[in-house]
Amino acid sequence: MVNKIDHYKILLVLGVVLLVYPLKAGAQSTTNSKSDVLIRSLFDSSLMEGQSWPLLTALCKEVGHRLTGSEGAAKAVMMTRKQMLGMGYDSVWLQPVQVPVWKRGAPERARLLISSIGQGRIKKEDQVDLAVLALGGSVATPIEGIRAEVLEVGSLEELKNLPNDRVQGKLVFINQKMDARYINTFESYSHCASIRVQGAVEAAQKGAKAVLVRSLTLSIDSFPHTGMMVYRDSIPRIPAAAVSTAHAEYMHKQWQLGKKLEVELVLHCANQPDTLSYNVVGQINGSQYPDRFITLGGHLDSWDVGEGAHDDGAGCVHSMEAARLLMACGYKPRHSIRTILYMNEENGMRGAQAYARLARENQETHLASIESDRGGFSPREFHVEADSQRIADLQPMLGALSDYGIHRIRKGGSGADVAQMRDQCALLMGFVPESQRYFDYHHARTDVLESVNRRELELGSAALAALLYLLDRE
Amino acid sequence: MVNKIDHYKILLVLGVVLLVYPLKAGAQSTTNSKSDVLIRSLFDSSLMEGQSWPLLTALCKEVGHRLTGSEGAAKAVMMTRKQMLGMGYDSVWLQPVQVPVWKRGAPERARLLISSIGQGRIKKEDQVDLAVLALGGSVATPIEGIRAEVLEVGSLEELKNLPNDRVQGKLVFINQKMDARYINTFESYSHCASIRVQGAVEAAQKGAKAVLVRSLTLSIDSFPHTGMMVYRDSIPRIPAAAVSTAHAEYMHKQWQLGKKLEVELVLHCANQPDTLSYNVVGQINGSQYPDRFITLGGHLDSWDVGEGAHDDGAGCVHSMEAARLLMACGYKPRHSIRTILYMNEENGMRGAQAYARLARENQETHLASIESDRGGFSPREFHVEADSQRIADLQPMLGALSDYGIHRIRKGGSGADVAQMRDQCALLMGFVPESQRYFDYHHARTDVLESVNRRELELGSAALAALLYLLDRE
Repeated sequence: MVNKIDHYKILLVLGVVLLVYPLKAGAQSTTNSKSDVLIRSLFDSSLMEGQSWPLLTALCKEVGHRLTGSEGAAKAVMMTRKQMLGMGYDSVWLQPVQVPVWKRGAPERARLLISSIGQGRIKKEDQVDLAVLALGGSVATPIEGIRAEVLEVGSLEELKNLPNDRVQGKLVFINQKMDARYINTFESYSHCASIRVQGAVEAAQKGAKAVLVRSLTLSIDSFPHTGMMVYRDSIPRIPAAAVSTAHAEYMHKQWQLGKKLEVELVLHCANQPDTLSYNVVGQINGSQYPDRFITLGGHLDSWDVGEGAHDDGAGCVHSMEAARLLMACGYKPRHSIRTILYMNEENGMRGAQAYARLARENQETHLASIESDRGGFSPREFHVEADSQRIADLQPMLGALSDYGIHRIRKGGSGADVAQMRDQCALLMGFVPESQRYFDYHHARTDVLESVNRRELELGSAALAALLYLLDRE
Repeated sequence: MVNKIDHYKILLVLGVVLLVYPLKAGAQSTTNSKSDVLIRSLFDSSLMEGQSWPLLTALCKEVGHRLTGSEGAAKAVMMTRKQMLGMGYDSVWLQPVQVPVWKRGAPERARLLISSIGQGRIKKEDQVDLAVLALGGSVATPIEGIRAEVLEVGSLEELKNLPNDRVQGKLVFINQKMDARYINTFESYSHCASIRVQGAVEAAQKGAKAVLVRSLTLSIDSFPHTGMMVYRDSIPRIPAAAVSTAHAEYMHKQWQLGKKLEVELVLHCANQPDTLSYNVVGQINGSQYPDRFITLGGHLDSWDVGEGAHDDGAGCVHSMEAARLLMACGYKPRHSIRTILYMNEENGMRGAQAYARLARENQETHLASIESDRGGFSPREFHVEADSQRIADLQPMLGALSDYGIHRIRKGGSGADVAQMRDQCALLMGFVPESQRYFDYHHARTDVLESVNRRELELGSAALAALLYLLDRE
């Protein structure tokens, strides 16, 4: 019976070949310009013998999460400084910066109490422990916690339009979904992030006791996603937490059924006095214009859950590895190239502010400030904040990059850290990788090394090395 | 101390907004042509209320793997037929096809025996159980297994150049790595797949007792990857298996140290008589040209490990969902549109051959045959097999697709199933999503629903629906 399979074997082999036959070998460019050859070798080097993966592994597994002011953040500063000292930079230094300190304290707890109201009687129905995380910057609850009736709203607008007496004394549950229709998930995020950032202010303004926001992610899962929130001076500071999307859906279902919902919430977090931390900076001196700078950076701090692998371990690794790849491939930049690992992007931006202040004080000329803070996914685009002519001038670069999957250089937000250089640098750029999976991990326990694909990370490092090169030789 | 964080709050909010500020809302096109509006609604519908995820969940979790001729394959035929009957196609039918049957039998076993040779004595050093999978189509070993000394080669070329007496009686271990430098991993695969497909023939030709090939994946992990292999009539049929890349690396290290390596291999697999199976076909009748067909398909069979989620559950879901989205968005195609779930792509291509034969016998006119068999990742390109003018004519479609991440329509291999239509269809196209993760899962236990990202899958379905629409109204 084994003979039975013989008659298709030629067809099969043909099929395997046809399936994968690269009619045009797009990846291996046939042009041989010096520029194409260098870019090819940056990618080859990154994919074959790159350091992206070991660097990210060390950051995630030897350090782990690194909230500003934490032991992890201090360890990360020391480790990346040491790594950069071994990479061949002309100089590596630390920029001191006073940073805010916020601590989660003991794990937060939240319990949903469900009752039904019928024939004038309240009947206890169920209790559910909710998956929550205090938002960064939130005050604690009293040590015994708070208990409040839930008021669900679908948006900040809806909350703003409610009369104060509907909100008074309640726990406001802001259950706005990220809009799934945007192709780039960062757009969904930008249209929804205010529920987390501003929710406590808006709720407290109307007398709420606490606020619980739906986690900012497009997936329905059990992991709460934290992130920064703010208070306003004249308005009471109420405790604020994020609840997992799965539990948000559950609460919404109970709410729709007309159940009476209460939440017991216990947060132990606290803001503490500022402390000293650092940006880590490495520089390759320019051979022709040592006083003109092209910078590439990510932020070294992360939230205090998971390992900050995509946010922004990937950006730190991209930044170090892009510079290392240029050196490994023997490229001598004309301008000085700086790698900047910013401290405190997540809850203060103090590192980026300090870098910008020092650059101004030292009257440094920055030609371009590039940021990678959208994860370690496959390269797709570069976003540019510059005038239209400058953006048009950059388009020819696509000729060198499109074989590597980058098909667009376009107007768009660069990044929160380089945005601090807006007044001092005419060209701000942001690395834009594939975005579909980013918010599955963002600010959650799931943002760990295992959520990163090695090759995708390596392609990002090489793409950024190529961008540094193309800007340098412009 | 809470006051300490106040002074950056405005900057912070500004930062959050700047980080994500879409200076140009690329996703939401501002043009309002009828075509743009329909394509937008295909994507909106897929992302907001699509069936991609429930369809793939049912295929992976209610059926699981579905090797040709297996119970799983039969279940998948019945389930997808039923699903398609509920979707609004004008007709749904099964195309009978005789298919080959290969069974793995009891789990295979392999053990590596390591000895050192020093001062004329052989010293047993270690034994390691290897992670292996029999290759599809392989014969069994004798029931007690075989034991043979290992001969490592780095490629088929190296094997071909060895004198027969070096190979005689050995287990040939073909340890060729996929070349990591290709940006599209399918190119790496195409340059390496012959070790799996042809390894047994080349080794047996020189008297080898068995062949063990390094798994075709770019990651180093513990999961063996199976796949089709062939025999040649006049050459002995020797057992063939794939070993995980982690174990391949380990064997290579021992080999380099000059250790004597033997392998005990036990395979229970067997080829059995052909059996009856089916392609599942659904058709939306064309309003203007009912006798001209545009087809989109994936293959319903998979290997017998994992769940065939990316290979090719995703392609089947893409194909059904693309048609369903067109119907859901109220589009009435001018040409007839067929969804084809091919049987037996992995080890025989019998379904695609049967489809092509019937199409020829019925003198059907096929305008375009599209395939999705590269996984459920984010859309990037379409590959086209057609003459250059035809490919040039397709380029204007990019105007409608580039807001959705598709920046290229170019010459390239379409797919193994639609390739059977080459003589009958002037336009063969293949869906080309992001490829970095595909071979992490390909033909391995890891190709399960959990390796698929919901949004990436949904974007693929919508992109293919858009392509069907654009080809239909051409």
